[in-house]
Amino acid sequence: MLEKVDLTKKISKEEYKEKMPELEARLGRLQRECKALSIPVLIVFEGFGAAGKGVQIGRLIQSMDPRGFEVHPIKNETEEERMHPFMWRFWTKTPARGRIAIYDGSWYRRVLIDRFEKRTKNKDLPAAFHSINSFEQQLAEDGNLIIKLFLDIDKKEQKKRFDKLEKNKETAWRVSQGDRERNAHYDEYAAMMEEMLFQTDTDYAPWTIIESMDRRFATLKIYTTVIKAMADQIEKIQAEKARKESGKAAETAADAGASGDLIRKIAEETDEEMKDLQVSILSKADLSLHYEREEYKEKLEKLQSRLEKLHGELYRRRIPVVLGFEGWDAGGKGGAIKRLTAKMDARGYVVNPTASPNDIEKAHHYLWRFWRAMPKDGHVSIFDRTWYGRVMVERIEGFCTEAEWKRAYREINDMEKDLSDAGAIVIKFWMHIDKDEQERRFKERQENPEKQWKITDEDWRNREKWDLYEDAVNEMLMRTSTDYAPWVVVEGNDKYYARVKVLKTVVDAIEKRLKEE
Amino acid sequence: MLEKVDLTKKISKEEYKEKMPELEARLGRLQRECKALSIPVLIVFEGFGAAGKGVQIGRLIQSMDPRGFEVHPIKNETEEERMHPFMWRFWTKTPARGRIAIYDGSWYRRVLIDRFEKRTKNKDLPAAFHSINSFEQQLAEDGNLIIKLFLDIDKKEQKKRFDKLEKNKETAWRVSQGDRERNAHYDEYAAMMEEMLFQTDTDYAPWTIIESMDRRFATLKIYTTVIKAMADQIEKIQAEKARKESGKAAETAADAGASGDLIRKIAEETDEEMKDLQVSILSKADLSLHYEREEYKEKLEKLQSRLEKLHGELYRRRIPVVLGFEGWDAGGKGGAIKRLTAKMDARGYVVNPTASPNDIEKAHHYLWRFWRAMPKDGHVSIFDRTWYGRVMVERIEGFCTEAEWKRAYREINDMEKDLSDAGAIVIKFWMHIDKDEQERRFKERQENPEKQWKITDEDWRNREKWDLYEDAVNEMLMRTSTDYAPWVVVEGNDKYYARVKVLKTVVDAIEKRLKEE
Repeated sequence: MLEKVDLTKKISKEEYKEKMPELEARLGRLQRECKALSIPVLIVFEGFGAAGKGVQIGRLIQSMDPRGFEVHPIKNETEEERMHPFMWRFWTKTPARGRIAIYDGSWYRRVLIDRFEKRTKNKDLPAAFHSINSFEQQLAEDGNLIIKLFLDIDKKEQKKRFDKLEKNKETAWRVSQGDRERNAHYDEYAAMMEEMLFQTDTDYAPWTIIESMDRRFATLKIYTTVIKAMADQIEKIQAEKARKESGKAAETAADAGASGDLIRKIAEETDEEMKDLQVSILSKADLSLHYEREEYKEKLEKLQSRLEKLHGELYRRRIPVVLGFEGWDAGGKGGAIKRLTAKMDARGYVVNPTASPNDIEKAHHYLWRFWRAMPKDGHVSIFDRTWYGRVMVERIEGFCTEAEWKRAYREINDMEKDLSDAGAIVIKFWMHIDKDEQERRFKERQENPEKQWKITDEDWRNREKWDLYEDAVNEMLMRTSTDYAPWVVVEGNDKYYARVKVLKTVVDAIEKRLKEE
Repeated sequence: MLEKVDLTKKISKEEYKEKMPELEARLGRLQRECKALSIPVLIVFEGFGAAGKGVQIGRLIQSMDPRGFEVHPIKNETEEERMHPFMWRFWTKTPARGRIAIYDGSWYRRVLIDRFEKRTKNKDLPAAFHSINSFEQQLAEDGNLIIKLFLDIDKKEQKKRFDKLEKNKETAWRVSQGDRERNAHYDEYAAMMEEMLFQTDTDYAPWTIIESMDRRFATLKIYTTVIKAMADQIEKIQAEKARKESGKAAETAADAGASGDLIRKIAEETDEEMKDLQVSILSKADLSLHYEREEYKEKLEKLQSRLEKLHGELYRRRIPVVLGFEGWDAGGKGGAIKRLTAKMDARGYVVNPTASPNDIEKAHHYLWRFWRAMPKDGHVSIFDRTWYGRVMVERIEGFCTEAEWKRAYREINDMEKDLSDAGAIVIKFWMHIDKDEQERRFKERQENPEKQWKITDEDWRNREKWDLYEDAVNEMLMRTSTDYAPWVVVEGNDKYYARVKVLKTVVDAIEKRLKEE
């Protein structure tokens, strides 16, 4: 989740000043609404040391009525707390209905700091994660809104901030030995963070990554995230209430009257403002990467020969391989698959093109048709478009409900885990090009009689939804890139570069596995 | 779950013959309705070898339209299946919408036979259980109805059936070496069954224990269970459909018209018939157990002194203890707690009486107030009535929704697991008396001026709901008695016996723990 995040995002002072007053007003308004509707809210601040948790909490509560919230600083356990089950201190600190509890640090310390400092043993991690998820699910099902914010900065920035704090006598005490330790072992600690995020990113309590290199950016993103989550929850509760009271199905919160309209307006406007604040992974891709023709041919040749041999080795060792290809229309999936399989033994791989589901497929769970196509041991299944349609086209076109695509991240992660546990190498490629390159390719296809079949009106229509897709793709990459089934963003403006990268990624992954065996 | 089940239940030939035709008609009717509503149904048969899975499946499908179901015998993996991820063979065998899939054996073999024969390693069990639950949850959320039946027989009966099968040339082949092995190690295998049931008994796919010593009883119970589950699902889908179509909230399936009325009638009648077929744990209690006064005094004295010492030892070793008391009104909770604590150091234990929740408690999750009262290390918390109110009084009086009490079993199991993982000894007592004894005690209280405060009109009203409570208690005992937090049914008609049993159970549990440390 973290390694791929673009941390360079900034907000100018002017933009910040312009936007904040409105956001602050909204937050105040929503707090009152939550109180009126008896909605309990938990806001969790986690993330790297010196990422600014304290500052951001201070900034957030400025717009809140102090009678309605409580901030819980979660430090080392007190004597009393240590003598109780770990979750005791958090259960007893859950907010009453209508109140807001803000956690500076939280129940996650057990799988973060406590793990890093070996107070939590590795063997106890599964139980700890289960316990955390059970806690959050119980509260969510009881009507609690749980907002989890992860403040992310990089190693260098963290060190810089620690240094600055230490230089000043008045702030030096804030940097502990433990902070320095975790900075020195930043990558190791980040890996624990990754695992934590993966294990606890659920539909009932999802994580939001807050890029915190720039404080203004972080503040804006925290405000909009909290506002959007509260507005959504209020709408949900209003609709439920209206349904119960009137005996009518309130499809929208509109039935809640003027208040409902206002909340809806807030939700929509905040949605709009969140667009520029979304986690961005695609923007990190360097689309200028390219190879010259000679370089390309040489590399391609070599990698294809290597893969030919490895394919045989896979077969002998009975290792299955699952390769998923997604990407922009005209992103180069077909071409990459063609080069990938060029020298592979045709008896050992299958390319599964994924079209709209047929009637039989529609009569089953959406993953059913993909399960059916999963490879035998020693075989390779290549998917041209995949099960990720659920969180892209189905999400955007409304072919499934919001609840359905939101839980799909976990369903998909679970499926890929099953494959991986059964010994499969699983890699997903996102073939990435920019909008201009896509236009160029679309036009080229239209003008070339031999390629015209490849371009339809639907492609042009999809292109108009570029921004919607970009957000969905960024979220998908973040929530489903795992160590056992990673996403690889392929810089695709240059087809040569893209094809070589795909081949090299596959070859490297197979070689790594063969070495491990 | 299993050890407590009363396996002696029988149905007479006459009753069986009288009831079956109606049940068969209902099942046929519901199958057509499921087809019309495109509901996919999975019926899983698991349980001990020779418990009658094959016979019962044969009996069940007699009432079904053969064009609408498929039976999948799940034996050893084929070559093809072994070369795929374990869940592949089951994903590919999920029913299409509107169809019924019956599994003779299932995905549970991985955590049962495969585990017993060490093909599944212990270290892989958590992933296997996760995988199973994820599979079932995904299907359930996609509208599949999952009915899981566990056919239970005891060791002796199993051996008898194997012997009989082996004596006959035509059936001898049906008893495998593995069957004999599992019979020889019945207890070990039963423990694996227990763990499986506990790990996978969920609100979206609960287990039903089928007492299978008597084939007629088993058939009736399977029929009613399947019918009830199908009728409930149909009602749910009809209501959803009506709501969507009319834009009105269809609180009942009545909006589905005549068909809805019929389904509702079937559900209610089946509910009625299921009453005598429920798993019974309480009926196994031998209420004639008693002590003479001298015997009682001597035992009591000894145990209390022993507990006094152990209590100090608990404090020194910082072991917390959680004791929950539930039971019939006038079942003797108070008296037992009094004798239990008689010689304990008052600084080391607290008795928490549980009344109706107050306003502050109502403003939180129902488990919040109990979490707050959990003991520190080295202390003892005794609860006079407990968090189990959720699945008894709240269930029966409608203070919470069906979804809420159904998921409470897991929530409670999770809480007790947290306590146990933190080192606590957790025991729950059900103080059991029969209805006559209760009446006697009620009257005694009414007649005794000093005890009159102990008896209210509400007690008499609750008494009228005895049967409802009995069913709820049996289900509660079955779903929440775990190895880390067992239920102990205390035979309470004789107060002397009951008090000694409570004390002895606590003393034994503490001594066992001290030895383990």
